[in-house]
Amino acid sequence: MNQILENNLKIHLLKNLPHHQMSEQYLYSALPAGKLFRPKLAIACFEDHWGDSTSKLKDPTQPLSLLCSALEIHHAYTLVHDDLPCMDDDDFRRGKESTHKKFGEWQALLAGDGMMGISFQLIQPLNFETRRFFSWATGPRGLIFGQYMDLSQDAAQSFQNMLLIHQLKTARLIQTALVGGYLVNLDKMTKTEFKKAKELFRLGHALGLSFQLIDDLTELGDEKVGTHEMNINPWIHQKEQTITVLNKQLKIIKSRHQNSCLSREIELYLNKMSQKIKSSKRIIEGHLKSELPSLNL
Amino acid sequence: MNQILENNLKIHLLKNLPHHQMSEQYLYSALPAGKLFRPKLAIACFEDHWGDSTSKLKDPTQPLSLLCSALEIHHAYTLVHDDLPCMDDDDFRRGKESTHKKFGEWQALLAGDGMMGISFQLIQPLNFETRRFFSWATGPRGLIFGQYMDLSQDAAQSFQNMLLIHQLKTARLIQTALVGGYLVNLDKMTKTEFKKAKELFRLGHALGLSFQLIDDLTELGDEKVGTHEMNINPWIHQKEQTITVLNKQLKIIKSRHQNSCLSREIELYLNKMSQKIKSSKRIIEGHLKSELPSLNL
Repeated sequence: MNQILENNLKIHLLKNLPHHQMSEQYLYSALPAGKLFRPKLAIACFEDHWGDSTSKLKDPTQPLSLLCSALEIHHAYTLVHDDLPCMDDDDFRRGKESTHKKFGEWQALLAGDGMMGISFQLIQPLNFETRRFFSWATGPRGLIFGQYMDLSQDAAQSFQNMLLIHQLKTARLIQTALVGGYLVNLDKMTKTEFKKAKELFRLGHALGLSFQLIDDLTELGDEKVGTHEMNINPWIHQKEQTITVLNKQLKIIKSRHQNSCLSREIELYLNKMSQKIKSSKRIIEGHLKSELPSLNL
Repeated sequence: MNQILENNLKIHLLKNLPHHQMSEQYLYSALPAGKLFRPKLAIACFEDHWGDSTSKLKDPTQPLSLLCSALEIHHAYTLVHDDLPCMDDDDFRRGKESTHKKFGEWQALLAGDGMMGISFQLIQPLNFETRRFFSWATGPRGLIFGQYMDLSQDAAQSFQNMLLIHQLKTARLIQTALVGGYLVNLDKMTKTEFKKAKELFRLGHALGLSFQLIDDLTELGDEKVGTHEMNINPWIHQKEQTITVLNKQLKIIKSRHQNSCLSREIELYLNKMSQKIKSSKRIIEGHLKSELPSLNL
């Protein structure tokens, strides 16, 4: 699965990049792909509603293939811009130098712009519902609003604001994967389909929120956690509230879609994270200055 | 005309922005609108092929209205990112502080990202041909490639490279206005329509190139021109070649579309620029260290 997704990614990038050294920045930023979490969620959602996707994914011009690459490339653009000196100022990403560190600042800025552009180029053949959701969720009322709140003073103001940031910055793209993986094959939208999409939207919300809160917890598995990270990590300052929210979201996730492709994909992910947390239990407990809370992962 | 375009622009921005102080950066960057050159070209092109546009423009949900705002907002995003410290590092734009100077760097970066997002949100209801052209022309093989070449060493390497940059960075969005203003009302694309779109593409190329070369000339109308500007201004270093190219493009422009809405729009523009050049003739000649070349404006 990873192989075919990464292959499509490469095809879609090269098709939309100039034959010029500038392409380097793009390929460096998007490849090798990460966990491909979002494309895999989209595929699982597709298969739950429309059956096997193997033949679709083998054809890079199929709507599902285009959506998968668009999700991953869009995700990559947000990382490149997030890492810029004026944003989070991160020198490393996915075990290598961040794009601006490797190529320079304006090169990374333009590579980010260009990857956003490619993601929108890729989705143009998709149906209106998918495109509308994609552009809304990633736009200035969605993901970009989350980035803004994250960098402004809004995050520190309240636990609710922190949750809103996770909802916008993380959940919106996961919702795009879930809702998009369903919508992408839809002929027309009636009440039934709308209800279905809404359910997936809610599930994506729960998934995005818990994904990010679990991620925040695993970050405490490092011996060295930066001061800024410690300051904004909800597990340090609002542990009880965080456990309550996370367990509530996990309950929502587990109560839905039993024995579906999506639930298997989610289980795989939760197991992996559970392992990761267990293996660095002591370090996490050191940062928390208390026992690891009981999580229903 | 300007009033209705600016009104639509405001409606489209507010509809896609969060109710949050973050909206300020967007509204500051996009309003008051500039000359609205690109939307006006799109409208002229529309009217030449499909008749009066007044009723369409009065309805902000009409494809033409959406295209006009998308063109202007996309243009505004490129300016905000171009002005950033890591790019051209400009403190002023359209007679006021540039967005990053007024609001800060990451705020401007995100406002640029968000405006690109809005432009793509706006075009989603348009037909496939228009969307495809829009996303190709503004993407990493188009406008963004031009920005890259402009900032890299490529520009200084040859006169041909400088022309390529103008073609990508300036002409692509003008071509989007021309081709888009025609395509936006198209039912289906046959050979005839394709030929028509191709003609407009060529005209947009000529227009974008001359627009930028004329702009380069008027920049010499300032008493103080920065060293960098002097270094890259083609009128200083390749005057003869520049005159030849410009007059050739002007000839192409004038030979086509006599008595059309588009030719009137272009004439208005050329007259304005001609006045501007005449009024600062002496200063320009000072920079050129020779007489103002004969232009067929």
